[in-house]
Amino acid sequence: MIILGLDPGYATIGYGVIEKSERGVAAVDYGVITTPPDETIAVRLAMIDEAMSAIMDKFSPDCVSVEELFFNTNITTGIKVAHARGVMLLNAIKHCGRLYEYTPLQIKQALTGNGRATKHQMQYMVRMVLRLATPPKPDDAADALAAAICHANMSGATRREIK
Amino acid sequence: MIILGLDPGYATIGYGVIEKSERGVAAVDYGVITTPPDETIAVRLAMIDEAMSAIMDKFSPDCVSVEELFFNTNITTGIKVAHARGVMLLNAIKHCGRLYEYTPLQIKQALTGNGRATKHQMQYMVRMVLRLATPPKPDDAADALAAAICHANMSGATRREIK
Repeated sequence: MIILGLDPGYATIGYGVIEKSERGVAAVDYGVITTPPDETIAVRLAMIDEAMSAIMDKFSPDCVSVEELFFNTNITTGIKVAHARGVMLLNAIKHCGRLYEYTPLQIKQALTGNGRATKHQMQYMVRMVLRLATPPKPDDAADALAAAICHANMSGATRREIK
Repeated sequence: MIILGLDPGYATIGYGVIEKSERGVAAVDYGVITTPPDETIAVRLAMIDEAMSAIMDKFSPDCVSVEELFFNTNITTGIKVAHARGVMLLNAIKHCGRLYEYTPLQIKQALTGNGRATKHQMQYMVRMVLRLATPPKPDDAADALAAAICHANMSGATRREIK
């Protein structure tokens, strides 16, 4: 089973593709989609949509795992990220149809057994689980791989289809 | 010039199409896109995308005017509306390319001369400007027509292309 993990953003979107088999999970590909700050938000959304379509066409994931969005104090940035996440969900449902979302706490819990794990712990575990020679970079790609691994580890009872 | 005004939402999205000519502005069509609450957010986003494409194909607007998003106390609803607005901006840029956004204050100011105008005043002015026999219903459609009229009234110097 191919799982695509996504870390929402509008300047930088992390993606991580893993394969889950009887032997465990393995990294297929990971990286980031970036959009230029001098473009309008609408053009940047179109760029995200196009880049996501290319990833979907290349890897044909069986399901997509997306980190849930929480707003911190910067609402203006938050609205733009939510705009982008809407485009990401639309693209995912058009190409794949099976979407799941997890809170940051659930993803940390699934990877380290601790919902309050540090970023360093998380990156260490992503690297261990996927048996990578070096930590996956940049951070957004590591976060996306973590979302994918979280979904791979979840039982049917606890994973959440997006509402 | 055909202007499409949009009032963002995810359960109910208002749209209003007007034509601006030397004789002034006239209503072409208005109404709402609705999505069922028992569907997942991703499916609802796909429904909004499809309905918007149908409106774009039918009216071929020269530009799109969208109300700017502000978050009130309900952040959970706000994130969903922002997801939907992202999809709306994507659809608009794909079909049209000329997008403008205005704050609620700017729209009220443009229609009534008062940025603090009541909903009743706004509906009255939308009806007057468009010479409609009855007030446009539902409210979301009236709000969308107001966004379109606002863009029609703005001079080049004060209208804002979406950043």
